[in-house]
Amino acid sequence: VSQRSLKIKRFVESDPPTRGAPRLMQIPRPYALFLGAADDPGWAKTAFGLHDWVPESCVAEIALPACVVTTGLPRVSVQEAIRMGARAMVIGVAPVGGRVEPSWIPALVAALEAGLDLVSGMHTPLGSVPELKAAAEKGDRQLIDVRKPPANLPVATGRKRSGQRLLTIGTDCALGKKYSALSLTRAFRARGVDADFRATGQTGIMIAGSGIPMDAVVSDFLAGAAETLSPDAPVDHWDVIEGQGSLFHPAYAAVTLGLLDGSQPDVLVVCHDPRRRDILGCPGYFVPTIAEVIDLGLRLAQRVNPKVRCAGISLNTGGMDPAEAENVITATARECKLPAADPIRGGAAFESLVDSCLSG
Amino acid sequence: VSQRSLKIKRFVESDPPTRGAPRLMQIPRPYALFLGAADDPGWAKTAFGLHDWVPESCVAEIALPACVVTTGLPRVSVQEAIRMGARAMVIGVAPVGGRVEPSWIPALVAALEAGLDLVSGMHTPLGSVPELKAAAEKGDRQLIDVRKPPANLPVATGRKRSGQRLLTIGTDCALGKKYSALSLTRAFRARGVDADFRATGQTGIMIAGSGIPMDAVVSDFLAGAAETLSPDAPVDHWDVIEGQGSLFHPAYAAVTLGLLDGSQPDVLVVCHDPRRRDILGCPGYFVPTIAEVIDLGLRLAQRVNPKVRCAGISLNTGGMDPAEAENVITATARECKLPAADPIRGGAAFESLVDSCLSG
Repeated sequence: VSQRSLKIKRFVESDPPTRGAPRLMQIPRPYALFLGAADDPGWAKTAFGLHDWVPESCVAEIALPACVVTTGLPRVSVQEAIRMGARAMVIGVAPVGGRVEPSWIPALVAALEAGLDLVSGMHTPLGSVPELKAAAEKGDRQLIDVRKPPANLPVATGRKRSGQRLLTIGTDCALGKKYSALSLTRAFRARGVDADFRATGQTGIMIAGSGIPMDAVVSDFLAGAAETLSPDAPVDHWDVIEGQGSLFHPAYAAVTLGLLDGSQPDVLVVCHDPRRRDILGCPGYFVPTIAEVIDLGLRLAQRVNPKVRCAGISLNTGGMDPAEAENVITATARECKLPAADPIRGGAAFESLVDSCLSG
Repeated sequence: VSQRSLKIKRFVESDPPTRGAPRLMQIPRPYALFLGAADDPGWAKTAFGLHDWVPESCVAEIALPACVVTTGLPRVSVQEAIRMGARAMVIGVAPVGGRVEPSWIPALVAALEAGLDLVSGMHTPLGSVPELKAAAEKGDRQLIDVRKPPANLPVATGRKRSGQRLLTIGTDCALGKKYSALSLTRAFRARGVDADFRATGQTGIMIAGSGIPMDAVVSDFLAGAAETLSPDAPVDHWDVIEGQGSLFHPAYAAVTLGLLDGSQPDVLVVCHDPRRRDILGCPGYFVPTIAEVIDLGLRLAQRVNPKVRCAGISLNTGGMDPAEAENVITATARECKLPAADPIRGGAAFESLVDSCLSG
């Protein structure tokens, strides 16, 4: 018997049988933002991100007495938050290690008992905390872990789907791919374009109220998860997909490639921080040039969508003064022969980037 | 507060704390091979693979009365297998869906009760079958699921490790990457080279008695798993790493890239089946040329090991007559200007490929 023909037979036949379609999480809104006992805004990044991006979905903040951080929302009791319309309390604070702090538990239990669902991006699954599990079961409330991918994700098929897709990719991790995708979605909508932000990380999922945490997906199903995240859509519809990792990051490039393959992007926007020299967490690895990322990104994306193009560059100029930022933006556009902009600074440069994205 | 600086802070600080080193599975040997009620050798691929590659670790086969397949090993009872030295029974048969068949359970329980550990590559976790769980607990036997990755896999660091590493990569899935790696390991050892086969898939793991099933690893830890699989080694030592998927496969390229990144290969060997036209399971996707795979493979591997080179091509000529096979091998070597061979046919062509691998 030929081992090779057996291998092929087995490969084709051993795929797990269809087990029903995956169900993407849908987080009830609006939110009350839980700040714990945060003593520095750095710990409350999730709360700030939600307040910035979906202010219409954030009605109040809830905190322990020791908390010295505020989002600017009214600080209220659980009962008041519910009267203000809150349907879920989001843990908007993350201490080192990403665990649920014992000191939070009475407040979290109180929220569940009062009728709020509880939403978390912590490493600790909410259901693994006995007090939370009991309170959720008793009150029939949901414990929503945004780090947990849906069940039944399929293996990717590679089939081309209808609709338009934009994916942000980066010269490194953590330099603005989510912000760029959110800004572009907002700008598309401002022009009357039917667009959805597709979230692939925990903060993005809380902002969107839905999504798939790509880095938590088992690798066999990574591209399939990305296919699930941006299904067939009307031809004029845009999915603006939050990028993850970087093709040049030695630890996370696989996540980036799986997301790229399943997204079948029509448009790439490259995100870059001009001050970043080394790949985050990998000493000795240098951040690639924008040109290298465009070249490799397009080459890999062409495998799944031959029509893919790079529409421009989203620069993170946070902390630069306006003149310095404008210099960097202008120089980058000239060097790459593509529109470049900092979406947070906006202006004509950003409108040109939006034009370029939509001009396909 | 700058969301971007918060993002970086959070990124660096939110990595899970070290939770102890991952422990790779170690499967007790030798094996008895369980064939179930197989009515076609196609279902018993795992058993045939083990008998082919580690005959010294396979003492007997065990089957149900309806089984009409044989590996050629003596068909015995569980008690006889133990007398012959067996320490574990491997489920060497896989029906459609990859599930444990109810009709097997009495035989599997008998093996556990008699003192054998049980090894499976099924989708069904062995411990989820109540009868097997009970029998294993009662007799203090191990239920070893080779599809289950070890706990505590780390995020990759990208740090260059000592020792030499060869990785097989393919123009597609399921065309001989495992066989090529096994053949090269055997050939290296025959020349007195200190070499280990590093298994990354279920059959490979059973052959090696150890390894990590890459496609089952959560994607954030994929490159880290590959780093764990081939740790620092003496400078003259070779890890010969079983490739997975293909950089050109729209469903599995992420697995391939994570394995490539964590493997930091010094040498790539490209595996190809000259008769394969379409990417397996993805209609409309064509198998790339060998030259494309070499080019993209080297480009991506250079990110983690600037010294990487392609040593040659391993061709799957199974089913061709000897003249046809020789023609294909000669033409491929000429076209790619690299040694090409079918490791299963061996001969001078294969020795040249081995020379090329070791000549760095």
